[in-house]
Amino acid sequence: MNIRLTTEEHVTTEPGETLHAALRRAGVDLVASCGGTGSCGKCKVRVVSGKFAGVPSTRLTLRERERGMVLACQTVAETDLYLEVPKESRLVVGDRIALSRTGELAAYLRTYGAEINPLTKRIDLELPPPTLTDSISDLDRLKRALVLAGFGGIRLSHGVLATMAGVLRCADWKVSLTYVEDNEFRDEALFLTSQDDARHRYGIAVDVGTTTVVLYLVSLADGAVVDVASTYNSQIQYGDDVITRIVFAAEQSDARHGVAALQSAVISDINALLDAVTARHAIADESIDAVTLAGNTTMSHIVWGLDPASIREEPYIPTLNFFPVWKAGTLRLKVNKQAPVFTMPCVASYVGGDIVAGVLASKMHRCPETALLMDIGTNGEIAIGNEEWLVTAACSAGPCFEGSGIRCGMRATAGAIESVRIDRSSFEPAVSVIGNVHSVGICGSGMIDAIAELFQCGLLNPKGHLVEGLTSRIRKGEDGLEYLLVRSPDRQNDIVLTQCDIENLLRAKAAMYAGVTTLLAEAGFTIDAIQRVYIAGGFGSYLNIEQAIFLGMLPDLPRDRFSYLGNTSITGAYLALLAKELRNEAEAIAARMTYIELSASRLFMDEYVSALFLPHTDLSQFPSVARRLGERKA
Amino acid sequence: MNIRLTTEEHVTTEPGETLHAALRRAGVDLVASCGGTGSCGKCKVRVVSGKFAGVPSTRLTLRERERGMVLACQTVAETDLYLEVPKESRLVVGDRIALSRTGELAAYLRTYGAEINPLTKRIDLELPPPTLTDSISDLDRLKRALVLAGFGGIRLSHGVLATMAGVLRCADWKVSLTYVEDNEFRDEALFLTSQDDARHRYGIAVDVGTTTVVLYLVSLADGAVVDVASTYNSQIQYGDDVITRIVFAAEQSDARHGVAALQSAVISDINALLDAVTARHAIADESIDAVTLAGNTTMSHIVWGLDPASIREEPYIPTLNFFPVWKAGTLRLKVNKQAPVFTMPCVASYVGGDIVAGVLASKMHRCPETALLMDIGTNGEIAIGNEEWLVTAACSAGPCFEGSGIRCGMRATAGAIESVRIDRSSFEPAVSVIGNVHSVGICGSGMIDAIAELFQCGLLNPKGHLVEGLTSRIRKGEDGLEYLLVRSPDRQNDIVLTQCDIENLLRAKAAMYAGVTTLLAEAGFTIDAIQRVYIAGGFGSYLNIEQAIFLGMLPDLPRDRFSYLGNTSITGAYLALLAKELRNEAEAIAARMTYIELSASRLFMDEYVSALFLPHTDLSQFPSVARRLGERKA
Repeated sequence: MNIRLTTEEHVTTEPGETLHAALRRAGVDLVASCGGTGSCGKCKVRVVSGKFAGVPSTRLTLRERERGMVLACQTVAETDLYLEVPKESRLVVGDRIALSRTGELAAYLRTYGAEINPLTKRIDLELPPPTLTDSISDLDRLKRALVLAGFGGIRLSHGVLATMAGVLRCADWKVSLTYVEDNEFRDEALFLTSQDDARHRYGIAVDVGTTTVVLYLVSLADGAVVDVASTYNSQIQYGDDVITRIVFAAEQSDARHGVAALQSAVISDINALLDAVTARHAIADESIDAVTLAGNTTMSHIVWGLDPASIREEPYIPTLNFFPVWKAGTLRLKVNKQAPVFTMPCVASYVGGDIVAGVLASKMHRCPETALLMDIGTNGEIAIGNEEWLVTAACSAGPCFEGSGIRCGMRATAGAIESVRIDRSSFEPAVSVIGNVHSVGICGSGMIDAIAELFQCGLLNPKGHLVEGLTSRIRKGEDGLEYLLVRSPDRQNDIVLTQCDIENLLRAKAAMYAGVTTLLAEAGFTIDAIQRVYIAGGFGSYLNIEQAIFLGMLPDLPRDRFSYLGNTSITGAYLALLAKELRNEAEAIAARMTYIELSASRLFMDEYVSALFLPHTDLSQFPSVARRLGERKA
Repeated sequence: MNIRLTTEEHVTTEPGETLHAALRRAGVDLVASCGGTGSCGKCKVRVVSGKFAGVPSTRLTLRERERGMVLACQTVAETDLYLEVPKESRLVVGDRIALSRTGELAAYLRTYGAEINPLTKRIDLELPPPTLTDSISDLDRLKRALVLAGFGGIRLSHGVLATMAGVLRCADWKVSLTYVEDNEFRDEALFLTSQDDARHRYGIAVDVGTTTVVLYLVSLADGAVVDVASTYNSQIQYGDDVITRIVFAAEQSDARHGVAALQSAVISDINALLDAVTARHAIADESIDAVTLAGNTTMSHIVWGLDPASIREEPYIPTLNFFPVWKAGTLRLKVNKQAPVFTMPCVASYVGGDIVAGVLASKMHRCPETALLMDIGTNGEIAIGNEEWLVTAACSAGPCFEGSGIRCGMRATAGAIESVRIDRSSFEPAVSVIGNVHSVGICGSGMIDAIAELFQCGLLNPKGHLVEGLTSRIRKGEDGLEYLLVRSPDRQNDIVLTQCDIENLLRAKAAMYAGVTTLLAEAGFTIDAIQRVYIAGGFGSYLNIEQAIFLGMLPDLPRDRFSYLGNTSITGAYLALLAKELRNEAEAIAARMTYIELSASRLFMDEYVSALFLPHTDLSQFPSVARRLGERKA
């Protein structure tokens, strides 16, 4: 059957295939932390027209069912369908751009010219069985065979020996030894299996985001992404951003317990995703024997149980930036305990492995053109450079684009206002809300829209102050002036954007832009030098670039220089899982990147103050905005 | 107060000191698996005369209390005492010989000329605190300090980094790094502490015996044995000897579960001993950071969770003989998780680390004199050699000396007949029983006595057949002829030694002796070449050497060549804990020892058949026995 989405995407279903499976195959990834068993109720879609079969789910309210909502994982098309996939059902990350269309990743990997050379490798060995006259121990027998195979120097872990006696005999002395290459020390043997068991090999790439955890199950033979799973990082219960989580850990009577609670939360999330994908593909945990992780510096520390406290305190020192390859058993991950885990190297306390992964995924470090990578998430990290140089900084943009510190702010989930238009004459707003439900708040893209529209209409002056007297929607509230976006019957639940919110948002956009110009200045360039702009991060997928430029958040460059890259953290982790060359390249990127501590930079403070204006005190940096403002006056 | 023991040992108590503590101080170690809290009720002693204070224990029966029995750990002397320490209250192991008097071990270590150089070492480091301009990660800062200290090549484990950030800051950047030297690879850093915490360092040496587990808590600074604890190996619930335990594991639906159950039993025992000694000395688990283990090959495998199945099946292959230094965390031992564990290397499936430890403790490998080491336990291992050569074999003597396969056999605990005298004219026996209770069976030393006495009296002929007609105590029983040792009122519980038992015992003594002569022949020597005989093992402590020679179990050599060494397994483990030179020496011993597989030797079969006679078909090998037999005839 053909399925047409309200977003104009097209999907074809195989007979009997669930909508969930069909959408996933087409690169439209749905949130489904239960792995498609119908129990989590997160993969809601709305059938606008067409017939379908499926069990009505108790996870849906009567009202939802009346409106045609179904769980995609429990529903099969009986005719062609016209389908709406609400934003809150989509993975927050990268479902709109080529790089994160997982079907294309193996092809993308090939464009690097890197051979598939996963974290783990195998050697087949055939040992002569022992006799009374050749009665050396199993270990000595294995070592003898390794010497003959040219692997005499390999280290043997307890994991190899723990099951060796049984495996050698069950496999009739024809075995496969899995080992991990080590750049610094001798290679280490990890475990022994029969040659049959060694045939199917999988790895996982995991993006440990502050908000979302995404996992790719990858065949190590050909790099195919076998499955994708995603869930929210349940550390959210301890705080929305890295700082509140670090504070949470520090405030426990014993900081180790706080770190352990955070670690345990995210490990449980990854294990839940693993449960889902291993069940779907009937894969034994043990056959997943390579892992890569990418996350910001705090997430990388917490996942390994390292106390992130010092990241938060001047002079902002992480425990480590380059993580040794440790074992999955240390993390209690539900994969082979001996599986090596490669953690994307970090650059500094606020520029982590997710950014290094982003640079790797963007290839900016390999190109002569100078590129700007902006990861617009909770913190706002930027990297600028090319094949010769790379600079990076964290902008401390703060979590306001994710709803924190904004009176009616929320994340981009059901009920969030995601876009706003304000009528130029009546000043009345038209809003669109995620999930076709009543609006309950406003998310990042809605805030950017709202501020751009207010500015466009003259309801906000270049200093970011709301202008009184033009419309009754600008009124005095508890915290001073506010713009009324949505009126509620009892006024108690009015959705407003306050002067205070606007100032928060302007500080965030100013930090991002000032970060870019400061970094450029440090490198001796101006905005014009930037030939490519890569926008990464979950938020970035829904950002209205035109409006963001209009605010002065993104540089005013020709629009064809901008690309959405979606979740570059998972893309980088995927690349590192498969190619030794790219793992080395990630480490070279981290080592090459010059980190600029903006909090200590006078230039940044000056740039920041200039960028607090709309769009900027120096309008010459924003020629297209100047034109648009000119048109407005005309 | 002065305490005189019925065994003529003398002990002095300090004011308020328990009998348990005073006896331990004097080298009389009592069984006390609870560690002296009064809860296990095992350290029973009988006050023959004198006054004492203490809470009457519910662990004692009314009858025991009436007889003056008290728990040594709950009792304090008020006057001088005359005390009986029943054998079942004593540790089975080594309380009678110089080497296991733990107070003398540090002095004994010095006789090796080896420096104290424990498994773990520490480096003190002082790091410059980070600043905004010197903001490298903690790990890079530590590495920089290590390079300056000449330790640039050290590997850093996850354990070091897990707590590094907090430790560095709490210790104000003055820290102590504990590391383990590695012969084969680069040294590995284990954990970081403040310099204060690093001051007190302990290690443990553990003898993992088939029957008993013994632990020494040792100060790594000076080699002093701080405490000793011992308990039965609770694997006994799964079988008395290594073979039945291997069979138990193999018979589980999943052999891994069987091995895990055995492993968990012995680890719990060691942890119970650790709980006792750390509580007594108020030591944190973390400050115990070095471990040595010694055990036979099967015990060494099980303690590390390695399936011992192939040890039992021809061609008798162990998984490994030389154990890498693994971490205590792998064993879930209640010590520092990062503590390295050195396992005494094994030689073959039936000559294990306990024998290598025995050779190390005896120093026979360093001396020009040729020595014979006999470890008379469940299996019966022997080693012969000197500074130039070493040969070893396991005799498959079987567990009959520990009571298995003997109609009325039992271990040397309360109720066991431990010695027997038979009147030369009346043929009536006089027996002495362990623990002053009614006899319920006969233990190894009693069996040897009984057979020697029967032979001496002519009730047993040189072929080992009971002779009928001389006394009514030799009678027909269910299994043929038997000698009645102790008559019970109802005849149901008569204690007898059957013809079948005697044949079992003769097979065992023949195996031991034939092992000695075969090994000697393999080395090109005869019995006369042996200048020293070392008897080791728990059993050995109570063996009547004269009677054992009379039976033809021990070689007929001048009696001054014989020495009891007690538990040489724990002595060897102690030595290896403290000196790197002696760890290397243990490995050299294991590598140097030529293992002779007796089950495949024709010579052994011939020698064995000859040794089945009493004392031997070749009486010229037993001149003193020949004399004694001559006297008998006269």
